[in-house]
Amino acid sequence: MNTEAQFYTLPEPFPCRAGGVIPEVTLAYETYGELSEAKDNAILVFHALSGSQHAAGTCSSVAGAEAYWTEECHPGWWESFIGPGRALNTEKFFVICVNYLGGCYGSTGPHSPHPDDGKPYGSRFPFVKTEDVVRSQAALLDHMGIEKLHAVTGPSVGGLLCLTFATLFPERVDIVLPLGTGSKLSSLQRLQNFEQITAIESDFHFNGGDYYDGPAPQSGLMLARMIAHKTYVSLETMENRARGELVQPREGYSFYRLGHQIESYMFHHGQKFIKRFDANTYLRIMAMWQRFNLKKMIGVDTLQEVFSRCTHQRYMIFSIDTDVCFYPEEQAELERLLKEVGVRCLRITVHSEKGHDSFLLEPDLFTPHIRYTLENDW
Amino acid sequence: MNTEAQFYTLPEPFPCRAGGVIPEVTLAYETYGELSEAKDNAILVFHALSGSQHAAGTCSSVAGAEAYWTEECHPGWWESFIGPGRALNTEKFFVICVNYLGGCYGSTGPHSPHPDDGKPYGSRFPFVKTEDVVRSQAALLDHMGIEKLHAVTGPSVGGLLCLTFATLFPERVDIVLPLGTGSKLSSLQRLQNFEQITAIESDFHFNGGDYYDGPAPQSGLMLARMIAHKTYVSLETMENRARGELVQPREGYSFYRLGHQIESYMFHHGQKFIKRFDANTYLRIMAMWQRFNLKKMIGVDTLQEVFSRCTHQRYMIFSIDTDVCFYPEEQAELERLLKEVGVRCLRITVHSEKGHDSFLLEPDLFTPHIRYTLENDW
Repeated sequence: MNTEAQFYTLPEPFPCRAGGVIPEVTLAYETYGELSEAKDNAILVFHALSGSQHAAGTCSSVAGAEAYWTEECHPGWWESFIGPGRALNTEKFFVICVNYLGGCYGSTGPHSPHPDDGKPYGSRFPFVKTEDVVRSQAALLDHMGIEKLHAVTGPSVGGLLCLTFATLFPERVDIVLPLGTGSKLSSLQRLQNFEQITAIESDFHFNGGDYYDGPAPQSGLMLARMIAHKTYVSLETMENRARGELVQPREGYSFYRLGHQIESYMFHHGQKFIKRFDANTYLRIMAMWQRFNLKKMIGVDTLQEVFSRCTHQRYMIFSIDTDVCFYPEEQAELERLLKEVGVRCLRITVHSEKGHDSFLLEPDLFTPHIRYTLENDW
Repeated sequence: MNTEAQFYTLPEPFPCRAGGVIPEVTLAYETYGELSEAKDNAILVFHALSGSQHAAGTCSSVAGAEAYWTEECHPGWWESFIGPGRALNTEKFFVICVNYLGGCYGSTGPHSPHPDDGKPYGSRFPFVKTEDVVRSQAALLDHMGIEKLHAVTGPSVGGLLCLTFATLFPERVDIVLPLGTGSKLSSLQRLQNFEQITAIESDFHFNGGDYYDGPAPQSGLMLARMIAHKTYVSLETMENRARGELVQPREGYSFYRLGHQIESYMFHHGQKFIKRFDANTYLRIMAMWQRFNLKKMIGVDTLQEVFSRCTHQRYMIFSIDTDVCFYPEEQAELERLLKEVGVRCLRITVHSEKGHDSFLLEPDLFTPHIRYTLENDW
């Protein structure tokens, strides 16, 4: 099935929570299935860090994203979860997925032309918070006439946005389905994110984000991706994948010669990534993650108070036993918080050899419980 | 007690195992205690990645290391383990610690003047392997007339060198005392080391290692240290230490503003480190670690064959329960290997809140067993 991005431009300039106003915000999104007449069957999917609006089907180009829409982007990132009879059953539900504000896949982001001068925003693009992303997508829902979602869902960083939506607009959602995520940052995440931010910021070509006229900060972005990638895929899986030939990179290393396939595997992944992603977008999402703070957003002192706004919702939470990006303990903590304040909640741990990325790769582990929760009350 | 580095220059040019000859090698070392007349009471200590020959006492300057010998270097790094009545009891033993070949604290390294032109070696300094470090130190022992060591010891990367010495020159040592180390690289170490190598190599100022005429690759070295540091100190300890004020760095970040004390704690540590270390040395030690391979060194197919050369030795192995740089599983594996081939071996797990760095900070956890093994047969 071929899909095409749709675009919605917000009617007003968009004030970001941490300061700065974006004069014109356009969101790129895709939808799957049909919106019911009562407009009560919509599910909003938040993509992960490096994902896009293109969750299902095949899409070979996106206006405004030509520079980054490589072949790797053509298949939908959650293809095996969305469709007739799948976890998000498009025979029943209307599924919406939107590229984040600040993204590089069609939504207004740092590489977009600034309306004042037609040049990329670059350093002029503000700090984006999870609530900015969520508020911009709520404006799209308003435009579609969807007052209340049947469900919000999202894996990884998408899960943080899913929780942001559910707690910022509790009245606009019934079912909350976060996968491999957490209710707050762990110290390890903070440090690993900070390393990635530092990698991009210290790239000689970064220039505060104003690099679109010259070479992009590719080595910084590559290193950031390498640092992150080791938390997405279990070491065992990486070891298995890295059994091929040891390839010496043609550039990037002048003294060091790679000595093991796992190094060239990782280098290869970093190289592939920088062809399809903008360092400024990466940095915005990392910064957004570092500032993820539901208590501060709602203006309360405890996460219990945050979730006590959500007692009418139902949460179906997934843990992946081998996840080292968001450890199972983090979802256990979310479950504990929810139960403490009387929010209905189920949690499932799936057992996978693949690590965090299981949510992309193994629909059989997730589908029955997702369908059960979306299609039945409990 | 004030100490002073001593220097020994090898009589011959030094051929490195992976290729390249260093025309003149000088080693900086310190000794503590007295060498017995029979020269049978010597203990060789291998320092960790960022350590030096200066293991005990106070030393305020080292010839040839002026650029890196900051105040942080003045106290001996293993002061609380070496001295009269301490773990390495200088009333009984003669303790030797040598800065690695390739180091920046007085031994010949990339920043040393090349005898041909008096300019720093830079990119001309070869790849160093653990066996090169060990062979150079064995030459120093020859010079001292020490045929056989009472013991070799070392924490972390020093432990890798300790095992290299014990297996390369099995006849030259009786007791082997590795702390928080492993018999081979884990995939996680390989990846984290590769990140650090990439951080330095991609620094714009690195220039293949020829940077002594201009700015050093400080941002790459800082990032490398940050990546490593999170494996040295337990997250809990870092969280406790990072309760101070959140300080925004004056440089290094143009878009991102730090949002949490743990970020400024980490930045501060990185900044402190780059004042006292040379990126070329860091890279040589990282590369050495990546190539650590006892099987290949000895030319056999299994680690069992490596350690079957060591049946006359005794091993006292330490694990730290919270160590995420060298996980306790790695020392358990070493213990298993040794026992399989009939090498005498004791292993102790110390319980610490501090993580890997416990070997620097908590002598009470290690001293009794170190002394017991050094001073008694079992």
